[in-house]
Amino acid sequence: MINKPIYFDHAATTPVDKRVFEKMAPYYTEIFGNPNSQHVFGRNAVCAVDEARDTIAKIIGAKPSEIYFTSGGTEADNWALRGVCGAFKDKGNHVIISPIEHAAMITTAKELAKDGFKVDFMKVDEEGFVDLEHLKSIVTEKTIFVGCMLANNEVGTIEPIKEIAEIAHSVNAVCFTDAVQAAGVLDINVKELGVDLMSMSSHKIYGPKGVGALYIRNGLRLKSIITGGHQERTKRGGTTNVPAIVGFSEAFKIANAELEKNAVYVSNLRDHFIKRILEEVPFVKLNGPKDGAKRLPANADFSFKFIEGESILFSLDLAGISVSSGSACSSGSLEPSHVLLSLGVPEGLAHGSIRFSFGKHNTMEQVDYAVNVIKQSVERLREMSPLFKLNQGEIKNV
Amino acid sequence: MINKPIYFDHAATTPVDKRVFEKMAPYYTEIFGNPNSQHVFGRNAVCAVDEARDTIAKIIGAKPSEIYFTSGGTEADNWALRGVCGAFKDKGNHVIISPIEHAAMITTAKELAKDGFKVDFMKVDEEGFVDLEHLKSIVTEKTIFVGCMLANNEVGTIEPIKEIAEIAHSVNAVCFTDAVQAAGVLDINVKELGVDLMSMSSHKIYGPKGVGALYIRNGLRLKSIITGGHQERTKRGGTTNVPAIVGFSEAFKIANAELEKNAVYVSNLRDHFIKRILEEVPFVKLNGPKDGAKRLPANADFSFKFIEGESILFSLDLAGISVSSGSACSSGSLEPSHVLLSLGVPEGLAHGSIRFSFGKHNTMEQVDYAVNVIKQSVERLREMSPLFKLNQGEIKNV
Repeated sequence: MINKPIYFDHAATTPVDKRVFEKMAPYYTEIFGNPNSQHVFGRNAVCAVDEARDTIAKIIGAKPSEIYFTSGGTEADNWALRGVCGAFKDKGNHVIISPIEHAAMITTAKELAKDGFKVDFMKVDEEGFVDLEHLKSIVTEKTIFVGCMLANNEVGTIEPIKEIAEIAHSVNAVCFTDAVQAAGVLDINVKELGVDLMSMSSHKIYGPKGVGALYIRNGLRLKSIITGGHQERTKRGGTTNVPAIVGFSEAFKIANAELEKNAVYVSNLRDHFIKRILEEVPFVKLNGPKDGAKRLPANADFSFKFIEGESILFSLDLAGISVSSGSACSSGSLEPSHVLLSLGVPEGLAHGSIRFSFGKHNTMEQVDYAVNVIKQSVERLREMSPLFKLNQGEIKNV
Repeated sequence: MINKPIYFDHAATTPVDKRVFEKMAPYYTEIFGNPNSQHVFGRNAVCAVDEARDTIAKIIGAKPSEIYFTSGGTEADNWALRGVCGAFKDKGNHVIISPIEHAAMITTAKELAKDGFKVDFMKVDEEGFVDLEHLKSIVTEKTIFVGCMLANNEVGTIEPIKEIAEIAHSVNAVCFTDAVQAAGVLDINVKELGVDLMSMSSHKIYGPKGVGALYIRNGLRLKSIITGGHQERTKRGGTTNVPAIVGFSEAFKIANAELEKNAVYVSNLRDHFIKRILEEVPFVKLNGPKDGAKRLPANADFSFKFIEGESILFSLDLAGISVSSGSACSSGSLEPSHVLLSLGVPEGLAHGSIRFSFGKHNTMEQVDYAVNVIKQSVERLREMSPLFKLNQGEIKNV
């Protein structure tokens, strides 16, 4: 029945929507000008980029002059944090981020700590929500940057960014949110959130890789990390990536127009999946918020006790089902997810975790097929697991 | 006869070769995985990126582990300079670059000067060649970075990089070359050049925008400027831009295979153009090397006395011919080219300069049409120019 590989890893990346690809295509071979050039080829490119900037600005409630295109979410995250640290040294050296940020933020904060910045982490509860009282207690007049994801990439927790921004602003710190997983998925407005900086990415919302944006509130000065020509109002050098920007904007436009439809569709798949797994697979823990409305519609993250996440992943891969044993960004490392550890998931259990992230092209048939495969895989893997046998009393006096 | 716009601005950007686009296309909608993912979609993406890295490494005489993909030439330039300054602070704070570098290097050096680095400029002669004796006299044990373009983007001068690298290494400084205009156009080998770092870009050689690479000699430590996940051996965070990398590699492969053919073809167009302009347009100066073999095959840069470059540009644009009044990266500014000023071209004359950069799709018919349009435009503009009339003795006692 299922003869094509099943992709349940949309939080890692998404295929480019065919409508997006069609919109981008002419900008490679025909409308190929450099927007900085003062001739007809350049002007046609400028028009396309201006339109894209307007589209994205409108969707997030910003002005076009507040949108700066980057090579992706990671560059935007780096720019936000490094840019604030570079520009606000005189005010202080205190940076606060959540412990469940993306590697782009965590690794960068650690780098800045080597250069003398003091990095503190917010507390999060077992569902991943930031503890606002704790945050209030650690901000000081020396705090320059308060950063938290709008929604987490592993467990899907949607954070109280508006409240976090208010706390940041109470000490005149800059508030940043990483909206890479949220933009185009949730209805977001930078003015309502009250943030000063927000990062976005194209390839998580059926747009091309290699392009993203940083919202920079007008009036906020930020040190640049990539300097060069006059591109992006002199704030980000490098030839403007016209086709990718056109694709990003088209993907964002489609995502926004179909936002509710897709949210209902994928959360139905997700809820059905969660219900079946919890009912039919023993010794399993759903990570992140129990309330489906408080997590990203596409996200389901499970810990399977007594087995390794990698083993389940390989087993599902053999059966043609693609999932993730954590953020794709940490793949290649054998460390358990820093997100799950921050939520208090014990290390052993964190090792047995799998993220399922559904997409608009998935079907209920695929979900049911996957549940059946998971049941069999988990059972077989546990049969081979000494830990499981120990727990079941099959092994004694070890 | 000429009914399509004529593009003579290939140094600003090039159209994507149709063969390149066909090779890239499946990586948007079908082979769309994140190379960091450990499943079939991820593995297919990994294969494509590995192959691309091998291809590019082989062409420039490097190992695949020495190729780091970036979002373009500007990011690669920034990484090289900022990365060396970040890693070699203990050795010294002295940076030397040529005065005719791209804005990505000049602007970045100026930023670093604000942070306490001492930036010196090499001397160049009136054709743009670096004065090696002068360079020898300014390197010191405190010099950490010596950077010079392999070939200049405005006047096309091909620099003596091997000799520059030897001088840099005599004081244990890192030698960088910006090969954005040269890679895929000249036959280059990093080992023969002796450089430690080399930046490259895709969109100058009929590849897509938004991708480039930095060659980092194995063993050279460099501070990262974009940190995050494990991508590019942990040195450059951000989801790997698979389709763009595939396109870059294909463009590089084609450029290398057709290098001699294209060099002969475009330099024939260029030489015919230069000959006719010098013979048929009075009061004109060819900037950069007189010897065609010492400049990029596609490049011709002229100063038209007594008129503004912008006026010629607009006039040619109206006639359907797209050229540049300097580097596209400086467009939007009214300052004369820093490259021409460094070559000793007087400010007034520098203002009257136009860069023509030819491409493999251009024809001799287009070149001849352009020469005729230029003759008429220049004559008409000079008729309106008080400076010209003054020079011709038509205006007296001003």
